Amino acid sequence: MEKIKQIAKDILPLSEKFLVKAQKRLDNLTKPKGSLGRLEELAKKVVAISQNMEPSLKRKVIFVFAADHGVAEEGVSSYPQDVTYQMIYNFLRGKAAINVLAGCVGAEVLVVDMGVARDISPHPRLKMKKIGYGTKDIVRTQAMTRKEAICSVETGIDVFEEEHRKNRIDIVGVGDMGIANTTPSSAIIASITGEDPGKITGRGTGIDDKIWQKKVNTVKNALKTNRPDPGDSVDVLAKVGGYEIGGIAGCILAAAKNRIPIVIDGFISTAAALIAAGICPCVKDYLIASHLSAEKGHKVALKKLGLVPLFDLELRLGEGTGACLAIGLVDASIKIFTQMATFEEAGVSRKVR
Amino acid sequence: MEKIKQIAKDILPLSEKFLVKAQKRLDNLTKPKGSLGRLEELAKKVVAISQNMEPSLKRKVIFVFAADHGVAEEGVSSYPQDVTYQMIYNFLRGKAAINVLAGCVGAEVLVVDMGVARDISPHPRLKMKKIGYGTKDIVRTQAMTRKEAICSVETGIDVFEEEHRKNRIDIVGVGDMGIANTTPSSAIIASITGEDPGKITGRGTGIDDKIWQKKVNTVKNALKTNRPDPGDSVDVLAKVGGYEIGGIAGCILAAAKNRIPIVIDGFISTAAALIAAGICPCVKDYLIASHLSAEKGHKVALKKLGLVPLFDLELRLGEGTGACLAIGLVDASIKIFTQMATFEEAGVSRKVR
Repeated sequence: MEKIKQIAKDILPLSEKFLVKAQKRLDNLTKPKGSLGRLEELAKKVVAISQNMEPSLKRKVIFVFAADHGVAEEGVSSYPQDVTYQMIYNFLRGKAAINVLAGCVGAEVLVVDMGVARDISPHPRLKMKKIGYGTKDIVRTQAMTRKEAICSVETGIDVFEEEHRKNRIDIVGVGDMGIANTTPSSAIIASITGEDPGKITGRGTGIDDKIWQKKVNTVKNALKTNRPDPGDSVDVLAKVGGYEIGGIAGCILAAAKNRIPIVIDGFISTAAALIAAGICPCVKDYLIASHLSAEKGHKVALKKLGLVPLFDLELRLGEGTGACLAIGLVDASIKIFTQMATFEEAGVSRKVR
Repeated sequence: MEKIKQIAKDILPLSEKFLVKAQKRLDNLTKPKGSLGRLEELAKKVVAISQNMEPSLKRKVIFVFAADHGVAEEGVSSYPQDVTYQMIYNFLRGKAAINVLAGCVGAEVLVVDMGVARDISPHPRLKMKKIGYGTKDIVRTQAMTRKEAICSVETGIDVFEEEHRKNRIDIVGVGDMGIANTTPSSAIIASITGEDPGKITGRGTGIDDKIWQKKVNTVKNALKTNRPDPGDSVDVLAKVGGYEIGGIAGCILAAAKNRIPIVIDGFISTAAALIAAGICPCVKDYLIASHLSAEKGHKVALKKLGLVPLFDLELRLGEGTGACLAIGLVDASIKIFTQMATFEEAGVSRKVR
């Protein structure tokens, strides 16, 4: 827990000085003030996070944290648990949605086995960090021990630090893979926001009304069985979370500490962001919310974090797919910031009225 | 008018066969059915437009149609008219927002002088197609003659055909430049949708309440003076439009005829799309609405076209900037379609519940 406490102390609020400097430059570019809307907001955020007036996204990394969930036994997902490891091989072969979208924005995909139920063969793009062979069924008992929860967050920290030391990362996207993981994510979000599970729990990979009702009851029962303390996010993670969710939370904390912007994806990575923000509220300043997921509790979770998503393309795939698309927008915003001419440079007249 | 009538006949509804084939492939890719939301819709649309199951966007072109507007004399814009030609030089030097964003998605920017008030020096990326030195003030008289309106649409057709013949274009983005052009666009949209000008007219480059009120009255007076016939979109274009708006409408028609998807930008290009759809309703099937502009009448215009924008980043710059960002999404959607593994290829289990 020492590592987590230390990192929480090392994350500082955004630099006011750089926010002001960035705004000044944006207002001098050859466009009506504010006319690039949220692209301007993004550029400003990245400048203030990196404390660099000439940021560039040379290395973009999508970390896909993967794990299995005991709660899959309750029949809350449309897919069998084996799909978790099957999809990991698909990621490693470069043929899944995340690989294609990462390719579109020039990002690398690194997969982290945080606790998949099967052993995965070694691969250069796979980090083997297995904490267990899947969590326990949260309807019956807590997902993992407190020690394991701490370990999952610390592992996420290490994963980021390792890669960043090897070769500086300029922006991080966080994604997930884990059959049934919208169930623990719903439980985390319901616990931390205090919202009714029926209003948080969605249809995941596409379940029907009957299974949805079972899933809502599963979330309710998990909260009743485990009584997580919303004021202690490590407790929430241990009781109703998942290994990959802890990993994502740790990765977010480490990136923020290193002043690297983090793009969160959908429902699962937002649940992880709530865990990270419970450990260090300042971390919110370093987060960029990519998309609004079709998963209905996502809006509530983003609101709790004070984040407004960049777009709503009705995505509900996870893996980091929405984060990839948003990284394209962040890249565009930075290029606007660094490459556009100012009014003076271009000899363009300013506003007269 | 013969050329316009002919092209309207040559634009056919989308291929039902390809829509079905595209849906089938999408449902076989390693992701829950429909989980890539609007990306799937985009891929399907491009497949059906191009009638090609392996589409790729090798050549992406943003046409920026530029012209001046007599109505600028009414003081409806924040910027002096000279900004139109000054910005064209900025485009040609590659230092404006459109150049930066086009660079992000690998698109070329071609500028078309449809009727700028000053002569522009020749440049390899400038097409000199001047119809006049700006339109007339629509509060006093009609913007242009019917002959000029036809000529502007035909010029837009020629511009597209010329480039497409030179080197096949795979996707088109249409943008605009013209100080005061939100005023004629408001008049076009109010005329064609029958909506009250007060509900259509927005703040353009950022005018205050007082100038906004003047702008609303300008639009109302322009409609009163000219009485455009909403059933005859060439009449609307002639009476309250602009040369660049006619050019965009023509470019849209030509691209649709050649089965090339067209990404529209914001308020001005949507007004032009309404003109094009008035000439040939089928053209709507070939349009992709990029963003919802901060300009308040945009929503009404898109609704009339039956289009739902892909994102809302509070953009209000024009030039084709929103279209560029959307081209990035279209490209991603096509790569998803062509590069992802199917369940069979990847050995991933299918849905069980």
